[in-house]
Amino acid sequence: MPQLGLLHRRAWAVLVAQLLRPPCEVRLGAVRSHSQVAEVLTSQLKPQLERSNCIIKTPKGTRDLSPHDMVVREKILDRIVSCFKRHGAKMLDTPAFELKGMLTEKYGEDSKLIFDLKDQGGELLSLRYDLTVPFARYLAMNKVKKMKCYHVGKVWRRESPSIAQGRYREFCQCDFDIAGQYDPMIPDAECLKIICEIISELQLGDFLIKVNDRQILDGMLAICGVPESKFRTICSSVDKLDKISWKDVRYEMVAEKGLAPEVADRIGDYAQCHGGLSLVEQMCQDPRLSQSKQALKGLEDLKLLFKYLTLLGIAEKISFDLSLARGLDYYTGVIYEAVLLQTPSEEELLNVGSVAAGGRYDGLVGLFGHMVPCVGLSIGVDRIFAMVEQKMKTFGERMRTTETQVFVATPQKNFLHERLKLIAELWDAGIKAELLYKNNPKLLTQLHYCENMMIPLVVIIGEQELKKGVIKLRSVVSRKEVDIKRENLVAEIQKRLSES
Amino acid sequence: MPQLGLLHRRAWAVLVAQLLRPPCEVRLGAVRSHSQVAEVLTSQLKPQLERSNCIIKTPKGTRDLSPHDMVVREKILDRIVSCFKRHGAKMLDTPAFELKGMLTEKYGEDSKLIFDLKDQGGELLSLRYDLTVPFARYLAMNKVKKMKCYHVGKVWRRESPSIAQGRYREFCQCDFDIAGQYDPMIPDAECLKIICEIISELQLGDFLIKVNDRQILDGMLAICGVPESKFRTICSSVDKLDKISWKDVRYEMVAEKGLAPEVADRIGDYAQCHGGLSLVEQMCQDPRLSQSKQALKGLEDLKLLFKYLTLLGIAEKISFDLSLARGLDYYTGVIYEAVLLQTPSEEELLNVGSVAAGGRYDGLVGLFGHMVPCVGLSIGVDRIFAMVEQKMKTFGERMRTTETQVFVATPQKNFLHERLKLIAELWDAGIKAELLYKNNPKLLTQLHYCENMMIPLVVIIGEQELKKGVIKLRSVVSRKEVDIKRENLVAEIQKRLSES
Repeated sequence: MPQLGLLHRRAWAVLVAQLLRPPCEVRLGAVRSHSQVAEVLTSQLKPQLERSNCIIKTPKGTRDLSPHDMVVREKILDRIVSCFKRHGAKMLDTPAFELKGMLTEKYGEDSKLIFDLKDQGGELLSLRYDLTVPFARYLAMNKVKKMKCYHVGKVWRRESPSIAQGRYREFCQCDFDIAGQYDPMIPDAECLKIICEIISELQLGDFLIKVNDRQILDGMLAICGVPESKFRTICSSVDKLDKISWKDVRYEMVAEKGLAPEVADRIGDYAQCHGGLSLVEQMCQDPRLSQSKQALKGLEDLKLLFKYLTLLGIAEKISFDLSLARGLDYYTGVIYEAVLLQTPSEEELLNVGSVAAGGRYDGLVGLFGHMVPCVGLSIGVDRIFAMVEQKMKTFGERMRTTETQVFVATPQKNFLHERLKLIAELWDAGIKAELLYKNNPKLLTQLHYCENMMIPLVVIIGEQELKKGVIKLRSVVSRKEVDIKRENLVAEIQKRLSES
Repeated sequence: MPQLGLLHRRAWAVLVAQLLRPPCEVRLGAVRSHSQVAEVLTSQLKPQLERSNCIIKTPKGTRDLSPHDMVVREKILDRIVSCFKRHGAKMLDTPAFELKGMLTEKYGEDSKLIFDLKDQGGELLSLRYDLTVPFARYLAMNKVKKMKCYHVGKVWRRESPSIAQGRYREFCQCDFDIAGQYDPMIPDAECLKIICEIISELQLGDFLIKVNDRQILDGMLAICGVPESKFRTICSSVDKLDKISWKDVRYEMVAEKGLAPEVADRIGDYAQCHGGLSLVEQMCQDPRLSQSKQALKGLEDLKLLFKYLTLLGIAEKISFDLSLARGLDYYTGVIYEAVLLQTPSEEELLNVGSVAAGGRYDGLVGLFGHMVPCVGLSIGVDRIFAMVEQKMKTFGERMRTTETQVFVATPQKNFLHERLKLIAELWDAGIKAELLYKNNPKLLTQLHYCENMMIPLVVIIGEQELKKGVIKLRSVVSRKEVDIKRENLVAEIQKRLSES
């Protein structure tokens, strides 16, 4: 395995480098003129950098978003947030870190993935792991009884990153939540409607939302013979069925988690069922499952949910799936997860897993001493981002990274003063404008810049124009130029921009 | 002065209240049951909560932003980002934390304020302290030679929080930076223009931008007799002149930092000078200062800068101020800081200090082994936020926290099905709509909700309307109702919304 050997050697080199090198440091000496400063610094630094083999990088599992990435990301966020607003949500923001105690006992087996801050005196803090627990803490702290809101922000998890699948240690979540005591299943149905709207509007292709209910799941585990103390850990295993085979899940349950083989097999029979409303009705008649009051309650809830989903026109997108378990501890009722249905050839390109998920968590706010039932959803922006990026590469789409409307150029030397006066006028009129930061730029350089940056208009000022009291206005695409009276320039530009 | 007396009393009350209670805390009280699940969970947890006497709060120096706060914040950010885009900036984002080594030796005396992450195995990490160092790291990592971009995000500092002044441990920065080798002072002048535009557009009242140059500052310290090793620490002291008196600054320099009293006095003579271009010209003639080549270079730069600022129409907003030093280590050339000029009575209400600042940092990217001169600025969103909030309270402005356009109501029982079908139609047409999550809400409750939330239109559906194939459309403000054919509803709503 030569390739594995290579990888090992490379990993080893990085490890050794990290152990041996002190963090990059340089002392500032006397400060001279500014271009000199940088030169002096770099020459001082160079040997040190070479010696220490300093690696300039972002932390493991994190990344920068370049201007191109940001344009794509902003478009995705804009669609998502528009949908949240369409459903009457207010906006909320919470700090990046919480008191460590706020996060404990909320995430079950995943708690080990929480990033803690160093104890530097004062409170013990952790980076938020999702937006749901901070939202619940907010509701409790402010004794909020009703609230429909959204929350966009970064969360952090010490997971093994998988860049190809869009799985990072720092990633962005977009949450929508409805808190309050309402009639059953109405807010839950709206959450599913929102997921449908967002995935459709982002044009991610065909999709399906798997739905289950923690009450059904718990009832099912109970009648299969799982002891209550093992419910959550067995849920975690069942939840892996979309990633690993039933054989491997069964092995985990029996060999690692000590379940009797016949109990595991009974779970297996249920966990492989999925379908629509008819499956819900069939399960209501199931001789074993119908013996669990809890399961029956969940099945009744799902029946009502399906009725509402039909009225909202999305029932055909929903699949009742008994294998859906969701890893997080705090769910108490309906749970759901949206998956994209890709054709096999596309699947090879990119397997992003679920792009949206959520559920009902009626007990979570209660853990903070304030009782409010809640239901919500979370959109996996980074996974969607990975898909859209892939698609754009495939279609070779070119995107603007700035919004500049007008470029101020000159064919002449020593015209910076006129350019500055002119561009200030444009800026003050609210027009998006740029110039080159050179005293004597070449006209060709300026025009090339406009073409590269896809700036639609150029304003050209030279001695001739200055004498005549005019400005040349050039369309970058058609290359047509016309003289405009200086005092009419802003109005003419605004007219052109409103037409295009 | 009865009004002043009142203000004093109010300020005193706020102070006392802050001393007596830690900010936003909630003690857990008795828990009442809302649903079975929640009750079970809470009863399980209760002894644990009581044992730990858990206080539900955000970490020290941090806060949630409520929907009302978010509306204000988004308006401020929108103005700032619009201005950045008007100047042709691209957008960038970097992770919340960096390798610890990336941040060391960048912030001088402030380094102790960096939040570190706990060593949980793997890399040593720190939360970013500003957006400038991550930007510099990005440039070096990607070997970028030219870039004009903006960067909006949270940064974290372990400072003593001062909520009244809008100083937090977590706060939002909006940075604009120009990287690249250009002709002198052109990008620097644009940065100052941007600060002027933003403060004007946010209508924060009269303001002034203090300008100085690190070369002048260092030249001045040298000719006053400060040893080079003490330049940065003496800069820190000088920088405090806008907060504490010259007497206290002098004490710090002499008693704490070991400067000879006569050296401190020489600094004092300069540090108390401020004025426009004429002061720059006067300093060029200063018999002592003109002996420093470095200072002369800085003064020549400022002369050129003032020429450009005049062309951009903002020279009268700029004050050359020899006391301006800026705490951060990385500046190498022009530095600036915008302060609001408040009337004395306003000042007592709120002293927010500087609302924008920045400067030239030609050596910073070089510390990461890649040579790019840079200049930039940072807008203090949270300080501006504190001001705008204060203003809104004074004027009693009422703001919407949702954008809902239409509310779907019914006067009848058992009309949920019709309401759901109707609202799905509105959502699918892109109309922002809400309904109450109740099977049988009262009409009055529904109409009150619209008035409270300032929703402009109500669609009412009942048995009569259903029979006639119409919908009642009601204007919340005028309370006028008209019947609209069901099939024309979306078009009619869109027409009304486009007119308003």
